[in-house]
Amino acid sequence: LTDPDRPAGPLDPVFFLSDYGLADEFVGVVHAVIAHRCPAATVVDLTHGVPPFDIRAGADALARAGPHLGPGVVLAVVDPGVGTPRRGVALEVATGTGPRWWVGPDNGLLIAAAEGAGPIVAAYRLRPADDSGPGSDARPGTFDGRDLFAPAAAALLAGDLPAGLGDPVDRAGLVRLPAPLVDRGMGPDGRPFLRTEVTWVDRFGNVQLAGVPGEGPSWIETGPVALHTSTEAPWPLRRVGAFADLGPGELGLLVDANGRWALVRAEGSAAGLLDLAAGAVVEFGPVVEGAGPG
Amino acid sequence: LTDPDRPAGPLDPVFFLSDYGLADEFVGVVHAVIAHRCPAATVVDLTHGVPPFDIRAGADALARAGPHLGPGVVLAVVDPGVGTPRRGVALEVATGTGPRWWVGPDNGLLIAAAEGAGPIVAAYRLRPADDSGPGSDARPGTFDGRDLFAPAAAALLAGDLPAGLGDPVDRAGLVRLPAPLVDRGMGPDGRPFLRTEVTWVDRFGNVQLAGVPGEGPSWIETGPVALHTSTEAPWPLRRVGAFADLGPGELGLLVDANGRWALVRAEGSAAGLLDLAAGAVVEFGPVVEGAGPG
Amino acid sequence: LTDPDRPAGPLDPVFFLSDYGLADEFVGVVHAVIAHRCPAATVVDLTHGVPPFDIRAGADALARAGPHLGPGVVLAVVDPGVGTPRRGVALEVATGTGPRWWVGPDNGLLIAAAEGAGPIVAAYRLRPADDSGPGSDARPGTFDGRDLFAPAAAALLAGDLPAGLGDPVDRAGLVRLPAPLVDRGMGPDGRPFLRTEVTWVDRFGNVQLAGVPGEGPSWIETGPVALHTSTEAPWPLRRVGAFADLGPGELGLLVDANGRWALVRAEGSAAGLLDLAAGAVVEFGPVVEGAGPG
Repeated sequence: LTDPDRPAGPLDPVFFLSDYGLADEFVGVVHAVIAHRCPAATVVDLTHGVPPFDIRAGADALARAGPHLGPGVVLAVVDPGVGTPRRGVALEVATGTGPRWWVGPDNGLLIAAAEGAGPIVAAYRLRPADDSGPGSDARPGTFDGRDLFAPAAAALLAGDLPAGLGDPVDRAGLVRLPAPLVDRGMGPDGRPFLRTEVTWVDRFGNVQLAGVPGEGPSWIETGPVALHTSTEAPWPLRRVGAFADLGPGELGLLVDANGRWALVRAEGSAAGLLDLAAGAVVEFGPVVEGAGPG
Repeated sequence: LTDPDRPAGPLDPVFFLSDYGLADEFVGVVHAVIAHRCPAATVVDLTHGVPPFDIRAGADALARAGPHLGPGVVLAVVDPGVGTPRRGVALEVATGTGPRWWVGPDNGLLIAAAEGAGPIVAAYRLRPADDSGPGSDARPGTFDGRDLFAPAAAALLAGDLPAGLGDPVDRAGLVRLPAPLVDRGMGPDGRPFLRTEVTWVDRFGNVQLAGVPGEGPSWIETGPVALHTSTEAPWPLRRVGAFADLGPGELGLLVDANGRWALVRAEGSAAGLLDLAAGAVVEFGPVVEGAGPG
Repeated sequence: LTDPDRPAGPLDPVFFLSDYGLADEFVGVVHAVIAHRCPAATVVDLTHGVPPFDIRAGADALARAGPHLGPGVVLAVVDPGVGTPRRGVALEVATGTGPRWWVGPDNGLLIAAAEGAGPIVAAYRLRPADDSGPGSDARPGTFDGRDLFAPAAAALLAGDLPAGLGDPVDRAGLVRLPAPLVDRGMGPDGRPFLRTEVTWVDRFGNVQLAGVPGEGPSWIETGPVALHTSTEAPWPLRRVGAFADLGPGELGLLVDANGRWALVRAEGSAAGLLDLAAGAVVEFGPVVEGAGPG
């Protein structure tokens, strides 16, 4: 079943993200399967360094990458439920500029990034790789990236119609992840606070936060702000536009390349300094000018 | 010398595996050499995370990937003997569906995977990269991946005849690795056992074993089985078809995506739990129902 | 603005090096940007394992890879000064065989490797990514690899003229790194020495040195040599042409695949044995035959 409206010309890329790592041959085998089924395909590896089984980290990486992807097929696999009745899906997005197809497990990995590209207009449940028809007692395997998702991505890239891959399912039933914590309020001491979850620590030790500039309380948008920890005095934060604006001992608050708040240092790891990892919660408060001990 | 039977159309991929890692530019330079000599080539990186100098680990990764490769040229380099008289070879395999050419050192890395693709019908000893002819005192170098194997792979991909690369050699003399340990018998206590080597621990901590389902004693194929260790009571193993079938504390025995026995956990590392690495030997025994202390 | 002299046919590759690592999606997003702007582009990843912020390590990797690159565009990003007034540049090199364009920050990363490919005949300062024209108060961001350098590389690859990307700048003002230490002389005990900086420790633990064969004192070129350390007796070094020429306990001195001196072992890490990392300084001296204690 091939889409008669399929445009001619070079194929758009497959954008591939997983928690497979690069120490084993998993990623290479998926590439080989795509190359075999669709020799003209180009595969762009978004990352395979998602921590094992960490659906949220994968979903966040996909959402950060999403706005920079052109037309194509997204193939994303972080799939602790492989081999269980969890569904494999292909989501179709109405977008003029981004990827039309998003293929992977229905566990919350795909949906936020797909919706960032445009409205989801259809969803298909992929038939399990070894489901050989009615009455079959075959069961899904342990490497659906190779056996189910890569073949589906290659087929969609080659212009096959999704009806050949599986049946439509209700978009409203797709699995979603809970939103990360962002909590603002007033402490028992009458001071306002903003608590927000660490969504990502990158290779450089930059600490990305769930809070988005423009949505916080006014004091965090404009005034001097401190980071509160349970073990030390509040860390004053310097608002900067570049890492190199900071001095050696300084901790900065910066709107990062994804438009999110991040704690940063100059040529050093803010995460290392603060002992923070994804999933931690940090608390901010305003710095009262002129206030001091006593 | 170009093969007159070379088919027209897009080139098949080069499938590239090594122990070069990705921290240095070794892999990139090999890609650049291939791109320079054969601009239309596509390179599929199988993995470069083979542990340094570990020929067996590389051979096993290649053998696992092999059945999923389409037509093309395999380039594999795990080569502690680089610069010595060990031979570089190109193996030709008669296969309708897999890679025809397998290029790398003759040290056991290639042969099992190549034979998995089909019978080896010819083998050629590659002329050393800097052997400039009779009387030359040039000697092979330290980076044959760049200087010898990548040029040979590019030439074969481009349709050059192997006779231009080196002379035929006797296939019977190709170096083979010893088989991993699989040992079954009866202990002094009258209990049967199966000892088998750990062939691979993957990123997720799954422990792949040399034993193959269908070839073990009957008690391991069907009955309840325990893992015996020197330091702890026997671990009961649950037979499962999917990682997620296991509870948090359980250890499972599963036929993995390569059709091999593997010790697994749900969202956790079996290798970490059991402190196992490739090359270790594990012992299984039947669980006698109703047996207990006293 | 497209170069009318642009040759037809398949595009040359983009050669991409960075300190982005592969754990995050940085590299994948840069690939996606290039694929979107220039769908026919091929990207060869040289390495993304340059240590964070380490301009010299990146420059050295680029210089080692340079001689093996064919025509194309180099994109290199190790950029602790991102977002500051440091310049982004495109260097044009007159070369018949290597890359014509070298794109990245003007911080010393590119220049030595570019000059290794041929004379730099022009340099252009790239207009910052979000500089929307005269009077704009927009400032550069934190991910110029994505927003500035990748678009510039894609444009040059596609045949755009550099004048569309920025204004020419004086080549004499390009930032250069200081040369690594190579120091020879006579110690207070009347013994000659050669001190040289460790420029690179690779995955295998080979220790590459700044000294180049043919440029050292005569005693290091030909005679028996020892490595002097502050804590142990001198290590005798065996001159070898291949790693496997060494026995298990031996330390070798070898001319490596880049034509540089390197300290090596057979199937083992010389850097681990000697506790050396890039930037360390090692000292060599001649071994006086027949000399001994007393």
